[in-house]
Amino acid sequence: MPTDWQQLFAERTARMRASDIREILKVTAQRDIISLAGGLPAPELFPVDEFRRAFEWVFETAGATALQYGPSEGYRPLREFVAQRSGKFGIRCAAEDILVTNGSQQGLDLIGKTLLDPGDTVMVEKPTYLGALQAFNQYQAKYAVVPMDEEGMRVDAAERLLAAQHQSGRRIKFIYALPNFQNPTGRTMSLDRRKALVEVASRYGVPILEDDPYGELRFEGEPLPSLKALDRDGNVIYMGTFSKLLAPGFRLGWLVASQDAMEVLLHAKQPSDLHTGMAQQMATYHVAKDGFIDGHLEHIRRLYGERRDVMLRAIEEHFPSDARWTRPSGGMFVWAELPEYIDTRELLLDSVKERVAFVPGQGFHPDGTGTNTMRLNFSNVPSDQLREGIRRLGRAIQQRVESPTRSERPVSI
Amino acid sequence: MPTDWQQLFAERTARMRASDIREILKVTAQRDIISLAGGLPAPELFPVDEFRRAFEWVFETAGATALQYGPSEGYRPLREFVAQRSGKFGIRCAAEDILVTNGSQQGLDLIGKTLLDPGDTVMVEKPTYLGALQAFNQYQAKYAVVPMDEEGMRVDAAERLLAAQHQSGRRIKFIYALPNFQNPTGRTMSLDRRKALVEVASRYGVPILEDDPYGELRFEGEPLPSLKALDRDGNVIYMGTFSKLLAPGFRLGWLVASQDAMEVLLHAKQPSDLHTGMAQQMATYHVAKDGFIDGHLEHIRRLYGERRDVMLRAIEEHFPSDARWTRPSGGMFVWAELPEYIDTRELLLDSVKERVAFVPGQGFHPDGTGTNTMRLNFSNVPSDQLREGIRRLGRAIQQRVESPTRSERPVSI
Repeated sequence: MPTDWQQLFAERTARMRASDIREILKVTAQRDIISLAGGLPAPELFPVDEFRRAFEWVFETAGATALQYGPSEGYRPLREFVAQRSGKFGIRCAAEDILVTNGSQQGLDLIGKTLLDPGDTVMVEKPTYLGALQAFNQYQAKYAVVPMDEEGMRVDAAERLLAAQHQSGRRIKFIYALPNFQNPTGRTMSLDRRKALVEVASRYGVPILEDDPYGELRFEGEPLPSLKALDRDGNVIYMGTFSKLLAPGFRLGWLVASQDAMEVLLHAKQPSDLHTGMAQQMATYHVAKDGFIDGHLEHIRRLYGERRDVMLRAIEEHFPSDARWTRPSGGMFVWAELPEYIDTRELLLDSVKERVAFVPGQGFHPDGTGTNTMRLNFSNVPSDQLREGIRRLGRAIQQRVESPTRSERPVSI
Repeated sequence: MPTDWQQLFAERTARMRASDIREILKVTAQRDIISLAGGLPAPELFPVDEFRRAFEWVFETAGATALQYGPSEGYRPLREFVAQRSGKFGIRCAAEDILVTNGSQQGLDLIGKTLLDPGDTVMVEKPTYLGALQAFNQYQAKYAVVPMDEEGMRVDAAERLLAAQHQSGRRIKFIYALPNFQNPTGRTMSLDRRKALVEVASRYGVPILEDDPYGELRFEGEPLPSLKALDRDGNVIYMGTFSKLLAPGFRLGWLVASQDAMEVLLHAKQPSDLHTGMAQQMATYHVAKDGFIDGHLEHIRRLYGERRDVMLRAIEEHFPSDARWTRPSGGMFVWAELPEYIDTRELLLDSVKERVAFVPGQGFHPDGTGTNTMRLNFSNVPSDQLREGIRRLGRAIQQRVESPTRSERPVSI
């Protein structure tokens, strides 16, 4: 008889549904749609020639090593490079503290796998990165949501939640934070908040997972120390990635963790996929080892900074006066809040008719709020298209401002 | 205060310990040890030049695609290639039925993730692949173990277990089988058993996960149809890999599944790591697309076949008369059973002193039996070293045959 898969699937799969982002990216792959939806770097800056030469080097000097099974921890010279470079940002670590992962996304999966029993609580910013929620949902997480303001996570609110959970005997397993140019809001946590968060978390014995894909994409102002750099108790696990420094296609990220956490993360990495591919680690090491990244980042910062300016000017011009939006100092995203009666999932349907796409913000809210919010990407769209895209989006919004009753229409994305 | 990680880890981590294989591979990385322990292909056959040229092609023709985020399903031309090639082996599938994974190991992880609730039972051959047990252990699996004989899994015993479970209302979630040159035993399931297993599993509505990394490494005799080729009900999920066809270093495998299973597997792949790296998929496609694999396999079969012969002759000469071992028609492993009073974990300590290593067989037995068994790899060791390695191993065994009381020594590997 035909297999009845539905009655075989594990309970956790009930929370592993196709994401908004995934489905939207399908629609927006149509050529004539201006997509502000993705979270993609600008491909015109990818160091294609450098990687071509790096793979030549790999196969001319160490082909058999590149093609054979490798260590679960990662390619040793790449781990040493990451450890050394992290030191420049005040993160004290050695190669032994680095686990190479298949992008940050696998880091999120491994953290969920090792720390979350069904029903365990993760403290997250509201809103927070959708891909993290999807990773933790696999392990049937619950969420304690902490509001944000222009200085990032409201640490006073986080502390009240920690105190309440502590008294009730329930457990917040870890705090997930994106201090730099957060996905989706573009907001950056202030130095005072960083210090306060590290102190409070350590006091309650609750570790922090610091996700920092965009930290080096700063267009203006001074860099702030990472939570990991402020940590004295081995209480912060740091996640970095080459996806925004060089290119995302290889899926290369890393975790920095103290040895007692690292041991168990490694025991989770091994049954997950044995190890991350060798050739791409070796080639990435070859591209990065002599300081290429620092010069390359100058190009990225300049281009993304220009695009942010274009997007902000266009929003100023085309969005209604009662809309609000962030003005990020780096990263890839602007976040907008529209009047509360506008549901951005419905707005997306109109927008696609106008041939422009964005990500509705509700998916970034584990509590189901944020129906009037949206994430706008500027890194992957040339300036003329950014202007035109925001103009079209403004027109779609304006129609909703003028006729709010349309929000009664059924939604299907 | 310093973080107390031990009290934070999820319950599932209690069963995610460092593996025998992992620890042994560390010891045997010492240069003067002849290692029959690994499960590694022969690196001298890796198509290094082909991959060098393939990466040139990738970065000269499609660098930006290779470096950008890609689809979670995998690189479309590679999926089409795999679907077409599968058809040659009687597996009817289209590109849509193929999910590219980071090696078979990620396939095992995704199956565990989507099908196993804590305490669910997986039916496995006894012995079975250690990496599969490690993958399923992450999801707190229990095991129903089915004995094997020279024709592979005893399907009559499997049917009795299925009937008993069915009556007791408990669930066997799926059957994990390695029909070709099984890891660790090298045994191949007969055609009658294959047909019977597919029929019985379908009758009880229990799917089969068919793991087939070695199917094409046949040195003699006629190929047998895969379980998936015999399946009419979409009840078999098939796992293939490029690790033994080309090279394992990229971590490239695939799942073949019917659409209703595929949808949920894809929802598990996405939060696990978004997608498998693009450049390595594109390069592998370029190497494989024009029939390279078929010619390349001739070299692999010839070399591994010679090494198998050398190993079997040496075993015949040096192992005690009451030892038994398999004579595989393909793959990478010979399996040996020593007299019951010999504990192969203890034997390994003596063997390492003799500068030869193997994998003790107990880890392949989820019921903790098999203390007198061992897995011997012949694919990764040149013939002269194979002869010398087995000679040394025979000497270590002979010492135990002569002095069985030494088995009272404490074990620590």
